[in-house]
Amino acid sequence: MNKQVDVLVIGGSAAGIVAATTGKAFYASKSFLIVRKEPEAVVPCGIPYIFGTLDGVHQNIVPTAPLANADVELLIDEVVSIDREAKSATTAGGVVISWDKLVLATGSEPKTPDWLEGRDLDGVFVIPKNRDYLCRLRSRLEEPRRVAIIGGGFIGVELADELAKKGHDVTLVEILPHVLSMAFDSDLSLKAEELLVKRGVKLKTGEKLKKLAGQASVSKVILESGEEIEVDIVILATGYAPNVELARSAGIKINELGAIRVDEYMRTEDKNIFAVGDCAEKFSFITRIVKGLMLASTACSEARIAGMNLFGLSRLRTFSGTIAIFSTAIGGTTFAAAGVTEQLARERGFEVVSAGFTGIDKHPGTLPETSNQYVKLIVNSENGLVLGGAVMGGQSAGELINVIGVIIETKMTVNELLTLQFGTHPLLTGPPTAYALIKAAEAVEMKLRHFK
Amino acid sequence: MNKQVDVLVIGGSAAGIVAATTGKAFYASKSFLIVRKEPEAVVPCGIPYIFGTLDGVHQNIVPTAPLANADVELLIDEVVSIDREAKSATTAGGVVISWDKLVLATGSEPKTPDWLEGRDLDGVFVIPKNRDYLCRLRSRLEEPRRVAIIGGGFIGVELADELAKKGHDVTLVEILPHVLSMAFDSDLSLKAEELLVKRGVKLKTGEKLKKLAGQASVSKVILESGEEIEVDIVILATGYAPNVELARSAGIKINELGAIRVDEYMRTEDKNIFAVGDCAEKFSFITRIVKGLMLASTACSEARIAGMNLFGLSRLRTFSGTIAIFSTAIGGTTFAAAGVTEQLARERGFEVVSAGFTGIDKHPGTLPETSNQYVKLIVNSENGLVLGGAVMGGQSAGELINVIGVIIETKMTVNELLTLQFGTHPLLTGPPTAYALIKAAEAVEMKLRHFK
Repeated sequence: MNKQVDVLVIGGSAAGIVAATTGKAFYASKSFLIVRKEPEAVVPCGIPYIFGTLDGVHQNIVPTAPLANADVELLIDEVVSIDREAKSATTAGGVVISWDKLVLATGSEPKTPDWLEGRDLDGVFVIPKNRDYLCRLRSRLEEPRRVAIIGGGFIGVELADELAKKGHDVTLVEILPHVLSMAFDSDLSLKAEELLVKRGVKLKTGEKLKKLAGQASVSKVILESGEEIEVDIVILATGYAPNVELARSAGIKINELGAIRVDEYMRTEDKNIFAVGDCAEKFSFITRIVKGLMLASTACSEARIAGMNLFGLSRLRTFSGTIAIFSTAIGGTTFAAAGVTEQLARERGFEVVSAGFTGIDKHPGTLPETSNQYVKLIVNSENGLVLGGAVMGGQSAGELINVIGVIIETKMTVNELLTLQFGTHPLLTGPPTAYALIKAAEAVEMKLRHFK
Repeated sequence: MNKQVDVLVIGGSAAGIVAATTGKAFYASKSFLIVRKEPEAVVPCGIPYIFGTLDGVHQNIVPTAPLANADVELLIDEVVSIDREAKSATTAGGVVISWDKLVLATGSEPKTPDWLEGRDLDGVFVIPKNRDYLCRLRSRLEEPRRVAIIGGGFIGVELADELAKKGHDVTLVEILPHVLSMAFDSDLSLKAEELLVKRGVKLKTGEKLKKLAGQASVSKVILESGEEIEVDIVILATGYAPNVELARSAGIKINELGAIRVDEYMRTEDKNIFAVGDCAEKFSFITRIVKGLMLASTACSEARIAGMNLFGLSRLRTFSGTIAIFSTAIGGTTFAAAGVTEQLARERGFEVVSAGFTGIDKHPGTLPETSNQYVKLIVNSENGLVLGGAVMGGQSAGELINVIGVIIETKMTVNELLTLQFGTHPLLTGPPTAYALIKAAEAVEMKLRHFK
């Protein structure tokens, strides 16, 4: 069977959907087709919540109605090869699809340490974006279990929090001194760890996994320290690798981290082929180095850039590097970060000052459900540019970090931040007299004066 | 008694406190004194909540600890005259205070229509920032009453919502066709009205008050239409007038709206005297016209500017006009706005396009407590600059409107907005694939293309 479309998008999770719908919005006369393997795509960042807050995987499915509404066609099939010369792709189902523009949104797969003994034992799981696999894991967690999670990044921490909440006996093992250290300095990571412990999670930070042991089924996690943890289930949350085999086979350039090389229009060196999301190269807005950060929000931002540039590049619509805006909730407290941590900034050679302020997120503080709200800013000493920020607080911190994201992305200085106006309301935000973001900026400015 | 300080701040509500604490942070060696009449200052925007959500006025007091911590002195007394030549001020208590810099933060007083018959009847109240007065009003509302509120601005609407929640029989009278029309176009005002009606508020929009009637105590509100409303209590929420008598007597220039004339450093024409908050002149960031907007958040922003410029002007730290960021909650739904409404923009001569998008504020939408989130953007057709925005949704809308505020204040175009990165999280924000702010921007961009 042959099929002809203007734009073929391979992969139909967050990035693929956004590339197609944005493209269709900007180029309404073009035809768009998404090909993906999964009949139902799971919401990637919602995965930890299928084990606790949600009733199951079926409640965590990306809706397809927006695709139909946008007049984007969806084909459930697997593209097995790309012919760049012929500008076509062939699927496992035998469809040959001709395209004018191609968007690769092939995502990522869990990666596990290949030296790890016991990783093929029954009861050892990873967290792929795969509905059936996740259903199987969930069914193994119907009864309270002894669960070890290896890896204290966002997925590991959120899983630990949810599973402990659900009554499982959870041990979280992280090789670094602190959890979430990609996003937070140790001050906030420590707070997150306190909340995990309070939730009942057994925390093993600075501990290296040696091997998994058991007959047929996993029964023990053995650490380098010699400690042995008895378990029913092990979840390896040790990161993801870009899924680039299709691109590699087609001769598209892959970078040293295994991601598809792209420019700031999200285009590969083949001008008709774009790549977005987990499979595409990432570089940091601040440090400018290439790294392997994978976030659905970043993926969608890249996908919008690709969609807008499909049939004509816009010098105004470029991707200027990942801001790395993270947010999560641990034990009911929101943790969020944007830009660089203080530690990363120093490691990369920035002279920085940082300061924080603890305020409240409603006002007066006598209002029901008022939470403390801590804001920290990391600022380049030489020029006052805001390089990073973090927030710990109630639910509103999830959007407050986006305020900080815009501040970073517009290359704002502390001086400009101090003159910004913020709306406040008793039931919704901190007080106008002590809005934590402004007070943190003021504290930074005081340090900058001292620095000069 | 004589007293000498470097900086005297007259008025100790939000603006006065922020002017003093910011000034002290920037000029640590200077001495700061606040003189205010009220032993306890009420949190201005918290006032509606003392009648419902809070247990009373005592729970809505501005804390003075931050003043003590910042080494700012507080004197409870009333300044009765200012001598600009001698650079001194005299209090009712007989203290003569010499100052080097003076900050006027004298606030505002409720204004009531002087033609209004019956406004002196017992049972007729206004909403001043006065603890004892508010306590008296609250004690009159211990039992369920028939209450008429005149004026459907923020104070009137919030009071109506709180009092109806508390079981009072509330009628809200607004002369304009819709409530909250200073902040919202009729689309969102209509939604607010629906929620008020659902809460049990009797809404009379487009109705002019004729007079109040009663023996000794008010018993009737009579409208121009002839309709009579039987009442126990009437609350006049008909606006506030700047409190400028002290400034006027000292020969400081007052503008045609009765506010103290200031420049963008928040300075009067006397270079040693600043004015901030409700008593000071306001002009709009977008329309550039002078108007009478009073918001604690704006007041605090002005106060920061004054505090930073006290002993040396900074060309970088100026007030560039009021962005007018409003937020409130009505019937549990957040309404927020920034910049201009579509109607105001057109009235002032801007050619604009606007578009909105309804998304959700958690994702997937199956998560508990997910609210719809509607975002609307108002954009200058000629150049794509964002002039205004509005959000209706859950609690996170209170910070999301600050994202839009920063977008307006940094003079961002829709094009730039479309390339911004926003952090998302299942429990905290809308989905990365359909973040309502981005989708609204996309919808505006589509209209702009059509416009060109």
